[in-house]
Amino acid sequence: MLPPTFDTYDPTVAEHLIQAMTNTTAGLPGYLHITAIEVGPGRLVCELPIGDKLLNPFGVAHGGVLSALVDHVLGAVCLPVITPGSWPATTASTLNLLAPVRPGVLRAEATIVSLRPTSAVVRVDAINGGRPVGAAQGSISILAAR
Amino acid sequence: MLPPTFDTYDPTVAEHLIQAMTNTTAGLPGYLHITAIEVGPGRLVCELPIGDKLLNPFGVAHGGVLSALVDHVLGAVCLPVITPGSWPATTASTLNLLAPVRPGVLRAEATIVSLRPTSAVVRVDAINGGRPVGAAQGSISILAAR
Amino acid sequence: MLPPTFDTYDPTVAEHLIQAMTNTTAGLPGYLHITAIEVGPGRLVCELPIGDKLLNPFGVAHGGVLSALVDHVLGAVCLPVITPGSWPATTASTLNLLAPVRPGVLRAEATIVSLRPTSAVVRVDAINGGRPVGAAQGSISILAAR
Amino acid sequence: MLPPTFDTYDPTVAEHLIQAMTNTTAGLPGYLHITAIEVGPGRLVCELPIGDKLLNPFGVAHGGVLSALVDHVLGAVCLPVITPGSWPATTASTLNLLAPVRPGVLRAEATIVSLRPTSAVVRVDAINGGRPVGAAQGSISILAAR
Repeated sequence: MLPPTFDTYDPTVAEHLIQAMTNTTAGLPGYLHITAIEVGPGRLVCELPIGDKLLNPFGVAHGGVLSALVDHVLGAVCLPVITPGSWPATTASTLNLLAPVRPGVLRAEATIVSLRPTSAVVRVDAINGGRPVGAAQGSISILAAR
Repeated sequence: MLPPTFDTYDPTVAEHLIQAMTNTTAGLPGYLHITAIEVGPGRLVCELPIGDKLLNPFGVAHGGVLSALVDHVLGAVCLPVITPGSWPATTASTLNLLAPVRPGVLRAEATIVSLRPTSAVVRVDAINGGRPVGAAQGSISILAAR
Repeated sequence: MLPPTFDTYDPTVAEHLIQAMTNTTAGLPGYLHITAIEVGPGRLVCELPIGDKLLNPFGVAHGGVLSALVDHVLGAVCLPVITPGSWPATTASTLNLLAPVRPGVLRAEATIVSLRPTSAVVRVDAINGGRPVGAAQGSISILAAR
Repeated sequence: MLPPTFDTYDPTVAEHLIQAMTNTTAGLPGYLHITAIEVGPGRLVCELPIGDKLLNPFGVAHGGVLSALVDHVLGAVCLPVITPGSWPATTASTLNLLAPVRPGVLRAEATIVSLRPTSAVVRVDAINGGRPVGAAQGSISILAAR
């Protein structure tokens, strides 16, 4: 499938995005220590460290860690390609959990597979310890600036 | 659709579950202050408080809060009806976000819609401020005790 | 979860819908012999007969039969409650297959769980031989009349 | 994300598969004229012609056509890589509809993104008239030979 093109990609927004997402200590992204590693047209890679505090009694990460990271990148990957002031709101997402997430780095690579004026569809691949641990697909509604 | 029956429901496990989930301060459930409110055969209701720390700059909860709560109840609702020692592992889930989640209580009601020896399907309804804010559906794999 | 209310329900549209969907011989719905059994505010029940022509070599219905029926009811259940002339377009759907579909009647019950001016979320329960065989959830975009 | 490897790929099964899927006139695949175009390790491409009989009154294909094609390839792509005699049963799938499907060829490209002894996860990209029209992701349970 041909990927969409991203003539609207704004590297300045992308740079702000990666700064904002790398330094935040606020909210759930701050608690999870989500950081942006790479940002490009239709693409965003974020990571977080799986430390002891995120493990369940079985020594693997709570499933909500991955689902929260997926939710985070689904919308954020759209920011540098949409009209300034508009907002990407995730309306639906599906996540397949492929393997347990263990201590180390959890990485999520988001790719826009469809971009239209008021909506986008994004896929996410999650990796941990060199193995795929999650595959997600989400619908994003692009809300106009008020 | 007729709901499945739950002859295997174990109220002792249910009681332990509600205690364990009400008092934990550990991990992501502890950070989010997830508590179990009601547990029954094929049903589990959990809540968490949406305080300032969970809000994004727009004054609504980060989407990952709801997705993590959904992930939490999807597996937990299965615990009182599966073979002791076996483990419910969520393999896939879909979440529709219906409305913004605002400060107050976020509630998730999980209902098992199908229960077979090695798998279950669960639906979740999320409510905030008296309005539905999320609808989810998940696949759970029931792993045998080792 | 409180169901949405349906002040906009139009029984005339509903009656036309049930007639149109009961008598068509055209297209995929005609090939599958989909008929509407019951229509109400936020609710639609359709059925189709699982005859020999729909079975695969293992004696169960091809999975596409259920997915096509689900797709059919997801949009149709919205017709009697949306603005005349607007159109319900399914944008995403998730289907859990719970058990094999065998010869007999395949029934799909659609329920609107959220209705907003430009979108809806619908759940579907599928039944065959007295057993649940499918559970679906879909996102519908309501397109304005041109 | 690194794709899984497919040491178990059996080109003989693949050849049988492409023959069987190209010539069938039976069942829903026969009605839809689904044919296999390309088969490889972890990959299957199928097509069907969108003729007048598959159009709805708006001149676009009924959504069930795409959902049935997706269901078809989700399981079939697994056949050449699983143990002979075992059977791929789709347990859940999510389909995003990206654009209307118009007269011409509808193509679905299936790719296995995870393969384990008893389960697989598969993505599907659908193309029509040179544009992406669908993106799907499905969970497949691999049932042992009896």
